[in-house]
Amino acid sequence: MQEQKKLSIISFSGDFDKLTAVFTLATGAAAVGYEVNLFFTFWGLDAIKTKQGRSAVGTGFLPKIFGLFMGGLKSAPVSRLNFGGISPLIFRYLMRKNNVATLEELVEAAKVLDINFYACEMAMQILGIGKPNLIPEIKGVLGVATFLKLADGGQTLFI
Amino acid sequence: MQEQKKLSIISFSGDFDKLTAVFTLATGAAAVGYEVNLFFTFWGLDAIKTKQGRSAVGTGFLPKIFGLFMGGLKSAPVSRLNFGGISPLIFRYLMRKNNVATLEELVEAAKVLDINFYACEMAMQILGIGKPNLIPEIKGVLGVATFLKLADGGQTLFI
Amino acid sequence: MQEQKKLSIISFSGDFDKLTAVFTLATGAAAVGYEVNLFFTFWGLDAIKTKQGRSAVGTGFLPKIFGLFMGGLKSAPVSRLNFGGISPLIFRYLMRKNNVATLEELVEAAKVLDINFYACEMAMQILGIGKPNLIPEIKGVLGVATFLKLADGGQTLFI
Repeated sequence: MQEQKKLSIISFSGDFDKLTAVFTLATGAAAVGYEVNLFFTFWGLDAIKTKQGRSAVGTGFLPKIFGLFMGGLKSAPVSRLNFGGISPLIFRYLMRKNNVATLEELVEAAKVLDINFYACEMAMQILGIGKPNLIPEIKGVLGVATFLKLADGGQTLFI
Repeated sequence: MQEQKKLSIISFSGDFDKLTAVFTLATGAAAVGYEVNLFFTFWGLDAIKTKQGRSAVGTGFLPKIFGLFMGGLKSAPVSRLNFGGISPLIFRYLMRKNNVATLEELVEAAKVLDINFYACEMAMQILGIGKPNLIPEIKGVLGVATFLKLADGGQTLFI
Repeated sequence: MQEQKKLSIISFSGDFDKLTAVFTLATGAAAVGYEVNLFFTFWGLDAIKTKQGRSAVGTGFLPKIFGLFMGGLKSAPVSRLNFGGISPLIFRYLMRKNNVATLEELVEAAKVLDINFYACEMAMQILGIGKPNLIPEIKGVLGVATFLKLADGGQTLFI
């Protein structure tokens, strides 16, 4: 019997286009039978916050400043050509028009496809994000060593 | 007999310095006998457009807006310190002066070294880019699953 | 006997948050017994400059311009939300407050953990950086082919 292939992605960026790449790769791999592990860290944590988590993030003053700018998927900027926040809207429109799954649909698909969501312990500490701020699908809060063990023997990407 | 080593790169960025990194890694690997697969997606598609493709990109109004800003290799910005467009020129000058291959030369070398160029189907749909807009060296227009199969068993990078 | 696992990172970015990711992954992997190879290129070279190297970088006029903007770890910007240079300070404060290792501490830890530091030959040529500008812990100045050989058989990331 052949071992299951594996794709692990360190999802570092909070940019709309890069998050789209993360979830396109993840769902595409899961659809052809890969085990997929997503490890959200730094700005990438934004993708896995609850709606409440987005506004309630942080316990001190400074994490609140970052929280203000990290408003979750709906406000994720594009890494280039952001045109004052219009660009993600254009992308969404183009995705819709061309029958391509939108980022929110890709995230939903990722849940259905049993993709493993993990959150980075250290980044959560730095940014003042607690587990209650994250969506319940998070399978665990991990450090680097545990993630490397999960990723071992497969392909690993940093996005 | 030893199996041929393999390097696959998901070329996502349209930045001059990152594209230089893609082609430096690709040609360096091919020169020592690696099979090299480049998968161009999103802004990275810019690197493999024809001259006509750059201006003729897109069929609707919105893809045209993006097309305007994605003018191909000659206009690729640097990811940092762009100084209003001067920075890529400085890089080119420094590369020339220090006898390092320029980005255009690296792309030419990639073709000669039989590096495999692939384009991402979904990104082409989103951005309204058709196959006639791409250079003829493109070996195929692929989805994620097919790319993962090609990349299997080698090193894969996301740039 | 099991072979030693290996993690290799192409450290391309000079951004504070991305460099933090590089050194967090590197020290985390080394702490659980991995062989770790860091290959610094382009803006990433900034992380391994000596204090003298930061100000003395380059031999011509143009490398000096870049050198001015590449002031080493203490001045590394954050890739997002830079708020005119304040953001890295906030990060440092949060890291300190939450008892997370700061970037400088992670670099020191990397040296103690026998992580291998390599510098990219081509990027040094382009940016006019010589070996005397780099910290003495640099194990070698390499091209792509040699790096790929070192990274072979392990996980490789581009950050």
